[in-house]
Amino acid sequence: MAAQRLKIGCAGLGRMGKRHALNFLERTPRAELVAASSPDPVELEWAKIHLEPFGVRLYQNYDDMLKHEGLVAVVVASATAVHAEQAIKAIAADKHVLCEKPISTSVEVSQSVVDAAAKKPHLKVMCGFSRRFDKSYRDAYQKMQSGAIGTASVLRSQTCDKLDPSGFFVAYAEFSGGIFVDCSIHDIDLTLWFFGDESKVKSVSAVGITAVEPDLRKHNDRDNAVGLVEFYDGRMAFFYASRMMAAGQEDVTEIIGTKGKLAVNTQPAVNHVNIYDETGIRREIPQNYYDRFEYAFVTEANEFSASCLDNTPLPLDLNNAVKAVRIGAALQESMITQKKIFFDEDGNRTELSRL
Amino acid sequence: MAAQRLKIGCAGLGRMGKRHALNFLERTPRAELVAASSPDPVELEWAKIHLEPFGVRLYQNYDDMLKHEGLVAVVVASATAVHAEQAIKAIAADKHVLCEKPISTSVEVSQSVVDAAAKKPHLKVMCGFSRRFDKSYRDAYQKMQSGAIGTASVLRSQTCDKLDPSGFFVAYAEFSGGIFVDCSIHDIDLTLWFFGDESKVKSVSAVGITAVEPDLRKHNDRDNAVGLVEFYDGRMAFFYASRMMAAGQEDVTEIIGTKGKLAVNTQPAVNHVNIYDETGIRREIPQNYYDRFEYAFVTEANEFSASCLDNTPLPLDLNNAVKAVRIGAALQESMITQKKIFFDEDGNRTELSRL
Amino acid sequence: MAAQRLKIGCAGLGRMGKRHALNFLERTPRAELVAASSPDPVELEWAKIHLEPFGVRLYQNYDDMLKHEGLVAVVVASATAVHAEQAIKAIAADKHVLCEKPISTSVEVSQSVVDAAAKKPHLKVMCGFSRRFDKSYRDAYQKMQSGAIGTASVLRSQTCDKLDPSGFFVAYAEFSGGIFVDCSIHDIDLTLWFFGDESKVKSVSAVGITAVEPDLRKHNDRDNAVGLVEFYDGRMAFFYASRMMAAGQEDVTEIIGTKGKLAVNTQPAVNHVNIYDETGIRREIPQNYYDRFEYAFVTEANEFSASCLDNTPLPLDLNNAVKAVRIGAALQESMITQKKIFFDEDGNRTELSRL
Amino acid sequence: MAAQRLKIGCAGLGRMGKRHALNFLERTPRAELVAASSPDPVELEWAKIHLEPFGVRLYQNYDDMLKHEGLVAVVVASATAVHAEQAIKAIAADKHVLCEKPISTSVEVSQSVVDAAAKKPHLKVMCGFSRRFDKSYRDAYQKMQSGAIGTASVLRSQTCDKLDPSGFFVAYAEFSGGIFVDCSIHDIDLTLWFFGDESKVKSVSAVGITAVEPDLRKHNDRDNAVGLVEFYDGRMAFFYASRMMAAGQEDVTEIIGTKGKLAVNTQPAVNHVNIYDETGIRREIPQNYYDRFEYAFVTEANEFSASCLDNTPLPLDLNNAVKAVRIGAALQESMITQKKIFFDEDGNRTELSRL
Repeated sequence: MAAQRLKIGCAGLGRMGKRHALNFLERTPRAELVAASSPDPVELEWAKIHLEPFGVRLYQNYDDMLKHEGLVAVVVASATAVHAEQAIKAIAADKHVLCEKPISTSVEVSQSVVDAAAKKPHLKVMCGFSRRFDKSYRDAYQKMQSGAIGTASVLRSQTCDKLDPSGFFVAYAEFSGGIFVDCSIHDIDLTLWFFGDESKVKSVSAVGITAVEPDLRKHNDRDNAVGLVEFYDGRMAFFYASRMMAAGQEDVTEIIGTKGKLAVNTQPAVNHVNIYDETGIRREIPQNYYDRFEYAFVTEANEFSASCLDNTPLPLDLNNAVKAVRIGAALQESMITQKKIFFDEDGNRTELSRL
Repeated sequence: MAAQRLKIGCAGLGRMGKRHALNFLERTPRAELVAASSPDPVELEWAKIHLEPFGVRLYQNYDDMLKHEGLVAVVVASATAVHAEQAIKAIAADKHVLCEKPISTSVEVSQSVVDAAAKKPHLKVMCGFSRRFDKSYRDAYQKMQSGAIGTASVLRSQTCDKLDPSGFFVAYAEFSGGIFVDCSIHDIDLTLWFFGDESKVKSVSAVGITAVEPDLRKHNDRDNAVGLVEFYDGRMAFFYASRMMAAGQEDVTEIIGTKGKLAVNTQPAVNHVNIYDETGIRREIPQNYYDRFEYAFVTEANEFSASCLDNTPLPLDLNNAVKAVRIGAALQESMITQKKIFFDEDGNRTELSRL
Repeated sequence: MAAQRLKIGCAGLGRMGKRHALNFLERTPRAELVAASSPDPVELEWAKIHLEPFGVRLYQNYDDMLKHEGLVAVVVASATAVHAEQAIKAIAADKHVLCEKPISTSVEVSQSVVDAAAKKPHLKVMCGFSRRFDKSYRDAYQKMQSGAIGTASVLRSQTCDKLDPSGFFVAYAEFSGGIFVDCSIHDIDLTLWFFGDESKVKSVSAVGITAVEPDLRKHNDRDNAVGLVEFYDGRMAFFYASRMMAAGQEDVTEIIGTKGKLAVNTQPAVNHVNIYDETGIRREIPQNYYDRFEYAFVTEANEFSASCLDNTPLPLDLNNAVKAVRIGAALQESMITQKKIFFDEDGNRTELSRL
Repeated sequence: MAAQRLKIGCAGLGRMGKRHALNFLERTPRAELVAASSPDPVELEWAKIHLEPFGVRLYQNYDDMLKHEGLVAVVVASATAVHAEQAIKAIAADKHVLCEKPISTSVEVSQSVVDAAAKKPHLKVMCGFSRRFDKSYRDAYQKMQSGAIGTASVLRSQTCDKLDPSGFFVAYAEFSGGIFVDCSIHDIDLTLWFFGDESKVKSVSAVGITAVEPDLRKHNDRDNAVGLVEFYDGRMAFFYASRMMAAGQEDVTEIIGTKGKLAVNTQPAVNHVNIYDETGIRREIPQNYYDRFEYAFVTEANEFSASCLDNTPLPLDLNNAVKAVRIGAALQESMITQKKIFFDEDGNRTELSRL
């Protein structure tokens, strides 16, 4: 007789949906993937081979999946555009929810999910910021907490994707919310984590360029961007996002304190191999964020399951997901309007002169 | 209805036994841990908490476990002294076997397992050299195979353990077979893998010291040792083993070819964090081999299961396990007798003058 | 009979003055340090021991040194406040000039030196941006020029000093021009070098904090600052400057192009030693900029001498020194006023609305 | 009036001769290169351009140079075959001597120089083991001395040259003394330095292969070799030498103690640049030993000069140079004869059975 397992369904079977489905199926001992849904026939075809033989019931329709008998939780891994709607429906159906980031590219829509969740405090509703589950980031966080660097004061973080020469990211920009909401959202979330949830933004400013894909301007987006965020408690963070890395994924974070610094991934490497040849000494690096954060997603699935089953606090607060989108959207706006944006201590927009 | 899974039992629940049991229970989707055995009450107590609730039947007696209904395979993770006996019994009972390394510290006893397995070709019998399943070593192997370094000619490899100040390894030395059989066995196996199974040893020579634990001499062992192996095809390998590393586990391999070099783990790191403080820039490293090779063991469990279920070739040949013990034992002997040992091309001992 | 050597005098014998004097005395074969001046008795005392015995004539008064018979060139290494005045006097006296950076913290004063030099085109007048002479930066520049990274589009650079717990830098801030003019000036100069002298600034924005030394605010300065510079040709640069590094000097630059990236000093190290102990693997880093750039200063002395003797072009254009101060001062102003500052293509301040 | 400078002559103007000559001419403030000799017209032609204009008198004949008026010291940088003869002549002429390594490939000939020097204790006679002057090795030595690694017990060191595809090293092998005497001599010298001059060798054993150049066997040499040295005080060292590195010069040393390890150059790099492109992250490494040790040679020239001028002890003992050749020659012999060689505590050859 086995212990109780979390019966979970997976909404969406695209790139991340497949990964979440398999992680819950194979690498989350306390969970049982019982259902999966996708409106896409190709995705369902994949699921017939990889999920159905292992006891996963497939649905074309998300609403139908929500009625799957015994279903207790849902991982929302569909297109960003429907994250919020599906999350709200799941909450309404009394399911725990693990929602891929971002909840929405809109602050208001994101907030609506938080509001829905707030009404059902017995449910676990989490937005999946994968880096919070990465062992390197956790080690850095723990070291900071133990005083290794004094007071953390400056945070530098970058999310830099390998160039996709197909230009896919131009089309994608129409719905992504822009480079700060799509990429830097992780760096913003890390900042809220390391600086503390109570951090209040004083100003944001940003600059962006289109070095490889001028067509991004049609969607008010850029392919390289730098953003600056100033906090009321005297700290600051700065972010670099790019979609044109040649070598692979380069997600780097430095937390700079008054007595030391913690650097995460300043020397990226996909494994422990170095190649020595006539060009020098070389190592390969992760090609995408999943190469880098694969085990963080597995940990996320396991910890979400444990939190639901044991009714213990989630490892991260849903409110931060909205806060991160708010900061990301402000940076995006600053980049496009070329204006620095100020906030008062209540989080309302203000003019510099009124500070 | 789920696909077929490999019903496996775990013999031994010591340090590695626990890890194998949990890996087959939680991280090997195509396997089902159905039984576990240990004569040790403390180990069984642990199993009552961590295995029994998940449907694993516990046995005090290994022979009884072998009769567990439906049992198809066994992972032998008990003390080295009983590896061979348990493996042979499992083979006799018509079970697939994954045996922890070494099969035995004795060449003859190791060979008896190979002989037993040879009589039952339908069984999958594998000795678990974990590094063969490590993604860095595999990447290096694949790069070598693809011609990245020309002809691999020299192999340097080291297995260096963190100092255990309790002196445990002195008592352990009585049964371990010595530092070359216990530690360097991995480096020897890597050499057989990278240089090819057909490699024939021409000579071995070794030197060892007791830098931290002179009592090892009672058991004809040393705490630091260097061994040299020369092959008939004009290649050579050299190994360093140590039990006194201060920082942690340092397992490093370099494969040096005529056109390049592949280096595995020359810059050990437990994760992606660097700490900057007044002492400089620092990173932590794995504290033991499991920190370093955890996922290799998971891959091993998964690939062994797949090979049994699908009746596909095992990823490594059992004969090599005997060959590795033979080389390790010869190095150990050379270290103790201070004599260089020569072999003819059939693997028989010979005098230099007769070569 | 020796070949002709550049007879040079050194103005100022403080920290950098001593170094320049010794470099011209001992490590610049084509130069001959014939004179040195300082109003400071302690500095002159030092010079009596280290310079005078080797044939260097000492002067209390800079003007007197300028009249030293046969003097052909001057290295101005005095306090920043008198750089410009001494440089202009030297030009008036028809001497070549190597002036420590910055010429002045004032754009106007800096320009006055350029103007003076422009009237004497036969003289070599150079502002010593040491990184231009560093072999790593030169290697990176050459690789960029050879097309290794496509089009350089984003430059990230930081000048981060080890924390001086004496608080010296608070007093220093009164005259330094501020953190962007004192520290980031190097990063700005690198940007002008790598992006090309013709680069035109479109906007600057900056944020700063006082994490360790709130008294800096008295002098309108900060101890950590981030600046963003946008160029009219679609490139951008961002800078981080800090005075509170725990481990040592961390001067890092990344030049990010459309097809690759060049990183300079992302893994700082003072030498080739790694220390393995119970805390992990550690390396020490340079403690100050001279530890890092010692040989760049030697190269600078040699190349300046060669340029004077052979009447060949200087390796860097004096105009850039003014341009760098202009950008640094604008960043400093932006940090203090919290306003983003815009320029038109002629370099004049403008409002965003008029762009 | 300048302080006294060491008037030195350079014997030999080949590759290393040119470097020594220029170092004493341009980078050794307390020395004055007054003479240079070479029987080679091409080398003299070079010297007419690079040395003569700076006051260096050129000689075709070494004996004539020794008579140069005022000459006080000689740097012997000619072919190894004449090192000893020229050193002995210089000693006879009462000159200080800095002799390139090795003094000779013959132990006896080397000893004859030591004997000659012993008779003139007022002279400074030094064999130039450049690594002793390298700041990384010195830092490691100092850290060891300060107790950072407990008792140094094992030393691993390698001297690995970039492959010279011209096959030059085959012809060179006729006179080089073999790979252990030519390359590993540095590692042996380091061992004597780090383990202490009093270290007594108990046994040596070695294996070598010809991976790229079988013709080396004509000269009893190999292109890759591993040697093991055991000391009477319970320490050991092992060396790897190679002439087929693809990336460049890889000279690495690890000093392994009971409480830590010091690693020198385990991550070779020619400068601080990393190149990120589609093949990964890459750095270039030194192409030859001079790229790696350039400044060590400069320091050597300066310290030798200071020792001569100030009559202070030389930084290294000439006797070690003989000891190093003795060990190197024994390793070479062991590699060729395939026999392990034993020594008694007085350094005499012995049989194992007599130990």
